Amino acid sequence: MNKKVKEAVVDAIDESIEDTGLPLALRRVAVDTYRENVAYLHRECDLYRAEGFQALSKVEVRANGRRILASLNVVDDIAIVGHDQLGLSEDAFASLGVEEGHPVSVSQAEPPPSIPALHRKIAGERLTRQDFREIVQDIAELRYSKIELTAFVVACDIGELDREEVFYLSDAMSRVGRRLDWHEHPVVDKHCIGGIPGNRTSMLVVPIVAAHGLLCPKTSSRAITSPSGTADTMEVLAKVEVPFDELSELVRTHRGCLAWGGTSELSPADDVLIAVERPLSIDSPGQMIASILSKKVAAGSTHLVLDIPVGRHAKVRSMPEARRLRKMFEFVAGRMGLTLDVVITDGSQPVGRGIGPVLEARDVMQVLTNHPDAPMDLRQKSLRLAGRMLEFDPDIRGGDGFSIARDILDSGRALEKMQAIIQAQGARPFDLDNLELAPHGFDVLAPTDGVVTAIDNLRLARIARLAGAPKAKGAGVDLYAQIGDRVERGQPLYRVYAAFRSESGFAHQCSERNRGYSIGKADEINRLNVEF
Amino acid sequence: MNKKVKEAVVDAIDESIEDTGLPLALRRVAVDTYRENVAYLHRECDLYRAEGFQALSKVEVRANGRRILASLNVVDDIAIVGHDQLGLSEDAFASLGVEEGHPVSVSQAEPPPSIPALHRKIAGERLTRQDFREIVQDIAELRYSKIELTAFVVACDIGELDREEVFYLSDAMSRVGRRLDWHEHPVVDKHCIGGIPGNRTSMLVVPIVAAHGLLCPKTSSRAITSPSGTADTMEVLAKVEVPFDELSELVRTHRGCLAWGGTSELSPADDVLIAVERPLSIDSPGQMIASILSKKVAAGSTHLVLDIPVGRHAKVRSMPEARRLRKMFEFVAGRMGLTLDVVITDGSQPVGRGIGPVLEARDVMQVLTNHPDAPMDLRQKSLRLAGRMLEFDPDIRGGDGFSIARDILDSGRALEKMQAIIQAQGARPFDLDNLELAPHGFDVLAPTDGVVTAIDNLRLARIARLAGAPKAKGAGVDLYAQIGDRVERGQPLYRVYAAFRSESGFAHQCSERNRGYSIGKADEINRLNVEF
Repeated sequence: MNKKVKEAVVDAIDESIEDTGLPLALRRVAVDTYRENVAYLHRECDLYRAEGFQALSKVEVRANGRRILASLNVVDDIAIVGHDQLGLSEDAFASLGVEEGHPVSVSQAEPPPSIPALHRKIAGERLTRQDFREIVQDIAELRYSKIELTAFVVACDIGELDREEVFYLSDAMSRVGRRLDWHEHPVVDKHCIGGIPGNRTSMLVVPIVAAHGLLCPKTSSRAITSPSGTADTMEVLAKVEVPFDELSELVRTHRGCLAWGGTSELSPADDVLIAVERPLSIDSPGQMIASILSKKVAAGSTHLVLDIPVGRHAKVRSMPEARRLRKMFEFVAGRMGLTLDVVITDGSQPVGRGIGPVLEARDVMQVLTNHPDAPMDLRQKSLRLAGRMLEFDPDIRGGDGFSIARDILDSGRALEKMQAIIQAQGARPFDLDNLELAPHGFDVLAPTDGVVTAIDNLRLARIARLAGAPKAKGAGVDLYAQIGDRVERGQPLYRVYAAFRSESGFAHQCSERNRGYSIGKADEINRLNVEF
Repeated sequence: MNKKVKEAVVDAIDESIEDTGLPLALRRVAVDTYRENVAYLHRECDLYRAEGFQALSKVEVRANGRRILASLNVVDDIAIVGHDQLGLSEDAFASLGVEEGHPVSVSQAEPPPSIPALHRKIAGERLTRQDFREIVQDIAELRYSKIELTAFVVACDIGELDREEVFYLSDAMSRVGRRLDWHEHPVVDKHCIGGIPGNRTSMLVVPIVAAHGLLCPKTSSRAITSPSGTADTMEVLAKVEVPFDELSELVRTHRGCLAWGGTSELSPADDVLIAVERPLSIDSPGQMIASILSKKVAAGSTHLVLDIPVGRHAKVRSMPEARRLRKMFEFVAGRMGLTLDVVITDGSQPVGRGIGPVLEARDVMQVLTNHPDAPMDLRQKSLRLAGRMLEFDPDIRGGDGFSIARDILDSGRALEKMQAIIQAQGARPFDLDNLELAPHGFDVLAPTDGVVTAIDNLRLARIARLAGAPKAKGAGVDLYAQIGDRVERGQPLYRVYAAFRSESGFAHQCSERNRGYSIGKADEINRLNVEF
C-alpha cells in the first residue's frame, strides 16, 4: 500500500471511531414495551443515515459505562424523538439508569457470542456445560432477540435435552444473577409445578414450618396464566412487595415469609425464557426443571418438597409421566446439591373452594383459624406437605411430620406465626366474616341430577380470569361441589364473582359454552392412584 | 337460574358487547416498526383498563369492515396517543387504510386457528396438506407472532420436512396472495439459490431469451444480506419499481422485464418467513424450495432454470449435497406442475469482476456490448443458462440453445432488447466510460507471491457491504484476480470503493483481518467437478 493511501485509511478509521461514538441526547419515550427494550431514532438523525441501521435491528446503547441492548424503531415525528436524540422505552430507560438529556452513544450490536452454540442445538447436537453457560449468560443479559430465544426454546423442546444437559442448563441459570446464602442449614422450601386452581398450600405450609423453627424464605410468584398466584392471594392479607434487605431481616426474625419473589434478580434468565415459553405453551420437562431448580438454588434453599399434581386436567396427566418427571427432577437436584422430596398429588380438581385472591385468602384463613367451614382438602394436603418438610429437620423421626404439623395447626401456633408474618410484611384489612367480593355475581347450575365425575381445572381457571381475577382481588369462582358429590338439576355448582358487568358477561358466556363440571354416575369417576 | 339473575346476566352480556365495541379515534404514530404492526393505547384509556390487555399482547383493530392484527404497546404520554385514541405504527396505519380520527374498535385477538397444527409440528408430527394451508394462511395474514413464526421455522428445520410436506408448504404458499396468468405457454424464468457475489446472469439471460421471443417476466429481489440484488443493480440502469399494470403491459410488448418483484403480493407468506429465517441464518432445503417455487408458480411461470452454485464458500458445499437438493426441487416442482431444469454451477468464486450495483452493471453492459474487457466467466455462464432456457422452446433442438444464445448476444440483439427494456422501465443515465464510483477507494494487496487458490465469497460480500453497497450504488469491490491467477507480493487483488470515509474504514478493518483470498501453490486449488 502506498503511503498516501495508508494515511487516508488511517484517517478514515479514526474518523469512523469518532462517528460511531457520536453522542445523542437520551430521551425517555413513555411507551411500555414490556420486557422488550426499544430504542427510537429519528429517520433524519445523522447517525441513522450514516450507520445504515435497519428498523428492528439490535443496537447497543451506552452511557456512563453502562450498556443495554434494544430493538430499533425508526421515528418520523420530532414530537417523539428529535434528530439529535435517542429515545428509550420505559423499561429500557430505567435499566440504562441515566437521566434524560445525558449523552448516549449507539452502535449496531455485536451478535451474542453464544450464537454458534445455538446453531449447534438447532442442528440437533448435544451441548456442553460451557455452551449452556454462554447461552444463559447471553439470555440473562438480554442479548438474544425474541427470534433467537424462541429458536433456543423450541430446539431444546424438540431435541429433548438429556438429563446432563438439563443439569447444565439449571446450573448455568442458577449462577447468573443474585445468589443468596442464609448461612444456616437446612433452608427449606416447597414448590408446586402448578396447574391446579386454588391450591394455596404455601400459605399454610410456611407458617407451620416456620412455627416449628425451620428457616423457610418462601418467595412466591404472581399469576402468569392462572387466576391467582400465591403472591396475589397473600396480597389480600399483607404487603408482598418487600425490599430485599427488609425481607431478609424479616425472614431471620420470623423464620419465614410469604412475599413476592421480585423474581428478576434470582435466575434472571428464567424470566426471559418464560416470556417465550408461555405464549407457545411450551413447558418441556427440561425447561420446567431448570426453571424451578435454578430459582430455588439461587434463593439459597438446601431442601425442597416438590408437589407434582396428576390429573386429567393437570399439567401431568398420568402416573408413568409423573414418575419419569420425578426421576429427572431427582437427578438434576442431586447434581446441584439440593435435597429433594417429590410428592405426587391428586390433581383431578381444584384444592380448596375459592379460586381468585380473596376467595383463596378466605380458605387459607379458615384453615388457620380451624373454622368449621374450612375446606378439608386444602387442610389435609397442606398438613401432608408441611409434614414432609418438617421431616427435613434431622431431629424429627421419619413419619412423624404429619402429626407435628397437625399439632402446630390445631394449637393455633400456625395462625400466630401467620399473623406475625402478616404484621411484619405490613398487614392489610381483612375480615373473614365480611369478605370484599366482586359485586357482579351469578351461579352456575347443575344441568341434570347425578354425581360430579370430573372437574376441568383449566376451564374454571379461565372463567375466574374472565371474571377479573387476579387483577380484581374479589373476583373469582367459589366452588360448591367436588368430585363425588351428588347434585340435583338446578342446584348451584359454583358462583362466579366479577368486578364489572362486562367481565361477568364474558365469564358467563364461557361457562355457558362449557361449565367445566361433568355430571354422571358414581362409577364413571376415574381416580388416579396417587400417594395423597 | 332465577329470573332476576338471568336478566342481570343478559344485561351484562349486552353491555359487554357495547364495551368491546367502544370506538376509539385512530391516530397515526410516526414510528417505523418494519414488518411488525404495533398498536399504541394509553394506559388511562378506559378500554385498556376494562379489557385487561397486556403489553405486547396481540390485538385486533377493526374499522370500516377491515381488520389488522398488531402487538400492543402501552403509552403514558398523551403526546403520543390520547385517552380516547388508538395509535398505529406507520405500516399498520397504512394497511388498515382508514384516515386519522376514524373510529376504530379494538379487542384481544383470537389465537390463530392453525396453532394446534403448529404444536403438532413442534411435537414432531408430520403435517397434512390441510395443516400447511391453515398455517400459511395465518402467516400471510400476519396472525402469527414472531415467537410463533420462529417456532414454525425451527420446528420445520429440526424436524426436517419430508418431500411431500415440502410440496404441501410450497403449494400452500403459492396459493395465498396474487397469482398471475400470462395466458400463454411456456412462460420461462431463471433463478439462482444465491450466495455468489456478482453473478448478475439474469441481466444477460433475460434480454437474450426475450430477444428470441420467449416470455420471461423476470422479477428480481433487492439485496437482503448480499451487497446487491438484481433489482439493485438494474436500478443503476433503469427504474425498477414499476406499477404492476404497467409492468404487465411492458412484458407483453417486450417479452421480458427486469423489475423489482414488489414481492409482497406474490406468495406473501414467504416474506414473513424470511424475516425470521434471515436473522437465524436458517435456510433449510425445505424452506428454500418452498420459498423459490411458490413465488415462481404464483408469478405464472411454467418453466424454470434453477442455478445451484457449489463451492467451499457457497450455500451448497459439495456435489452430493447439490444432487440431493436437486432431487427435492425436481420432486416438488413436478407436483406443482412446473417444468424444472436444474443446473449445478461452479460457486467457488464470484462471477464477474464487480461486486456492488454500479460495478456489476458495468460487467453486464460490457458483456452486452461485446466490450474487450467484458468478464468472460459472466458471459459464459449467462450464455449457458440462457441456452438451457431457450431449449424450453419446443422448436429448439436439444443442445442448440447455447449457440443460439451466443448468436443473439454477439449480433447485438441482446443489447438492443436490453435497451428497449431499459427505455420501457425508465432509463437512468449510465456511462460505461465514466462510472459513478464511490469516492473513497483503496486497494487490497497480495501478501506474498503465489497463485490464488481460493476466494471467500462471504468475506468479499461482507467487505462490499461494509463499504456501503447496495445503499450506495457506487460502493463495492472490484476484483483484479481470479482463482488460478498468479500474483506477486504487493500486487492489488481487488479495490474497494466506499461512499464515506467511515465506511471505508470499516471495510478496511474487515479486509485486514481476513482479505478473503488464499494465495498458495497451483496444486492446492481444489476444483469441484461441476457441470459448468
